Amino acid sequence: MNRRTFLGTLAATALAQSPLPRVNAARLREHLEALSVFGRPEGGTFASGVSRYAYSDADVAGRAYVMKLMQGAELTPRVDAAGNIYGLRPGTDAGLPPVLFGSHIDSVPNGGNFDGDLGSLAAIEVVQTLNEAHLTTRRGLEVVIWQNEEGYAFNNGLVGSRAAAGHLDPGELDAVWNGMKKSEAIRKIGGNPERIGEAKRGPKSFACYLELHIEQGGSLERAGIPIGVVEGIVSIDRYDVEVRGFANHAGTTPMPDRQDALVAASMLTVAVNDEVRALPGRQVGTVGQLNVSPNVPNIVPGSVKMVIELRDLSEKRVASLGERIRSRAREIAAQTRTEITMKLAAHHDAALATPEVQSSIEAACAKMGLKSQRQPSGAGHDAQMMALLGPMGMIFVPSVKGISHSPMELTSWEDCARGADVLLATAVDWASRDKA
Amino acid sequence: MNRRTFLGTLAATALAQSPLPRVNAARLREHLEALSVFGRPEGGTFASGVSRYAYSDADVAGRAYVMKLMQGAELTPRVDAAGNIYGLRPGTDAGLPPVLFGSHIDSVPNGGNFDGDLGSLAAIEVVQTLNEAHLTTRRGLEVVIWQNEEGYAFNNGLVGSRAAAGHLDPGELDAVWNGMKKSEAIRKIGGNPERIGEAKRGPKSFACYLELHIEQGGSLERAGIPIGVVEGIVSIDRYDVEVRGFANHAGTTPMPDRQDALVAASMLTVAVNDEVRALPGRQVGTVGQLNVSPNVPNIVPGSVKMVIELRDLSEKRVASLGERIRSRAREIAAQTRTEITMKLAAHHDAALATPEVQSSIEAACAKMGLKSQRQPSGAGHDAQMMALLGPMGMIFVPSVKGISHSPMELTSWEDCARGADVLLATAVDWASRDKA
Repeated sequence: MNRRTFLGTLAATALAQSPLPRVNAARLREHLEALSVFGRPEGGTFASGVSRYAYSDADVAGRAYVMKLMQGAELTPRVDAAGNIYGLRPGTDAGLPPVLFGSHIDSVPNGGNFDGDLGSLAAIEVVQTLNEAHLTTRRGLEVVIWQNEEGYAFNNGLVGSRAAAGHLDPGELDAVWNGMKKSEAIRKIGGNPERIGEAKRGPKSFACYLELHIEQGGSLERAGIPIGVVEGIVSIDRYDVEVRGFANHAGTTPMPDRQDALVAASMLTVAVNDEVRALPGRQVGTVGQLNVSPNVPNIVPGSVKMVIELRDLSEKRVASLGERIRSRAREIAAQTRTEITMKLAAHHDAALATPEVQSSIEAACAKMGLKSQRQPSGAGHDAQMMALLGPMGMIFVPSVKGISHSPMELTSWEDCARGADVLLATAVDWASRDKA
Repeated sequence: MNRRTFLGTLAATALAQSPLPRVNAARLREHLEALSVFGRPEGGTFASGVSRYAYSDADVAGRAYVMKLMQGAELTPRVDAAGNIYGLRPGTDAGLPPVLFGSHIDSVPNGGNFDGDLGSLAAIEVVQTLNEAHLTTRRGLEVVIWQNEEGYAFNNGLVGSRAAAGHLDPGELDAVWNGMKKSEAIRKIGGNPERIGEAKRGPKSFACYLELHIEQGGSLERAGIPIGVVEGIVSIDRYDVEVRGFANHAGTTPMPDRQDALVAASMLTVAVNDEVRALPGRQVGTVGQLNVSPNVPNIVPGSVKMVIELRDLSEKRVASLGERIRSRAREIAAQTRTEITMKLAAHHDAALATPEVQSSIEAACAKMGLKSQRQPSGAGHDAQMMALLGPMGMIFVPSVKGISHSPMELTSWEDCARGADVLLATAVDWASRDKA
């Protein structure tokens, strides 16, 4: 039997003044390096990145490794019907909902070893550290590893957290990708698609949800600040755009007679960039996908399909940017004698982080002497689904050069450990509270 | 034996005043309609267009049909070592080189029934008409059906005429396309790749080369003019352009930090259009092909490959346009923090039509009361290869709405017959000359 110090009865303020253990930075690094092997390119090293997309054999192997780590931290892992992995460290008051924290371990193809992995393994490290310090909290601490956050498989992510929030799309389990049905994919990772409804969590099933994650942008590194306190996850509007001109011979069609869909699409791409940059603020806008038809050097392009994506913490601003761009598209269509249709194909609500959770993260940083800054998350995270159910907060650590979704994705080991320390302190703070 | 009127001894001017027969417009139409069956989409009609690309079974069947028509016109078809089909109508003076005329019957996929077909079948119709009128010329009349003008197969056209001009690329016969070697392809259409050198024609092997073709642009139709007298075939410079930025997360990368290759490529596409239109004249410039990488909606594009094509009758103008665009590319690269490389991947010399042949075509039009205009050909034609060997001229007829390389490609039957009449008159004129 371990001798345990009971923190659960301390008030939140008292806890904030009590000394807390720090995570084992070397062990966290060791675990991140060990996980990186699953999905590593043949003959590669840690720096070669990883292709551990959801439901792949590498994902299955990585999940087995993570469950082994959980067992080592006295967490008995269970896989829910959706394929999420949970492990509960009981608190002293079993009647109170636990603090839930974790992340994902699936990656994009040719991704990096920090996106998701850090938040997942730091969550286990937090529990291990508390075990070794013989500290028990009032509320339980529940670690979660969400399945298929990235959505490379089936082109649709946040699958595990959407299942937990009851936000799966109708018929989603029948989707087919690479010859595999999503229901089979879920079975492959140990889920039970027939009973997937059971993966849904109640709105009062956790005191708060926390997620440590790499920033995936360069603002923390540039500012020399080790911790980002996420204000929320941005709203996203995605427009499918089709430009219809007229395909004709590039040698014989005089310039004034052309209805060149690519010239129009190019003008629109430049307009998106200009409109987004014209406003002060942190909004972003991207044309990331553009396909030309017939895409032959000697034919004036007849049509172009492209995707415009707009993001900001303010849904209003995202919508109004969409309207400005729509109006520019009308002008460009008239000028180029093309037709341009812009269809809102996807809308994601912004998910604001709970102010009390933000304050708690800031207090933890202050106590450790770590500078922090508030900032939006431009990327989507499982946390946005948990924000639908209860209090939510996210902790960011710096990404070197802001690079992510790339083998070059990098966060210093010191920053990884700092983030895990802040996660520990914030989790313990919330696990000590009477009311969430 | 036919009773024949001998035109060969008449001087060119005298001939120009003599009455010439007109082609059988109904028969020409009938032949064009019959040829359209080879490569027609299943269940389609004439208006469905044709996919009779070189070396396909449809091409082989179409060539067999054409050879049958040649036999009907008392032309004994022979296939040369390159796979071109020739048929000679002897003149009275076998010591003089013949007038060579014809076109091609291969098409692009989903092409039309006039591009190449008209010039080919009109050439046979000219001979048939002269046969029926019992008119014999001094020089022989040699009909040619060039193989693989379009270059859909093996991505490289004018194959038959390049073989005749001695301009095949080294190793070209070893090229592989769709699992077929070009030498096998040539054997499939009756050629003899081992002896392909024998397909080369001498520089004095014809008095002049004539080709009737659809305009493939809209200028004749717009001007209400039935005949275009081609001044020459434009020079083409084709640049392979690579834009290198940096791929990063579209949600987390602030606008000022981006090195967006597609924004740069779009600015360059607009710049090409602007620079080409800024000058007076008939030059054209096109970005017909553009490929984005990684081409995913939520990733800032890391690189773009695109092709810029510039055409004008003046090679100098094409080169100077290239330099203007290169300079714009440098500005855009600096502005967007990308790298842009522009490599001249292909250059085609301009091929000027011989002034005396242009005059001869104009005289034929005048005699028939047909308006004509001089104009460049923006498209490449087998005629440009023949211009390397001797006098060359081309006759254009209107393309409805300027559409070509499309099932919607259309030339009225009246215009087809007018073009064939002008071809007949011009061929007879040159076949009557002492000196070419």
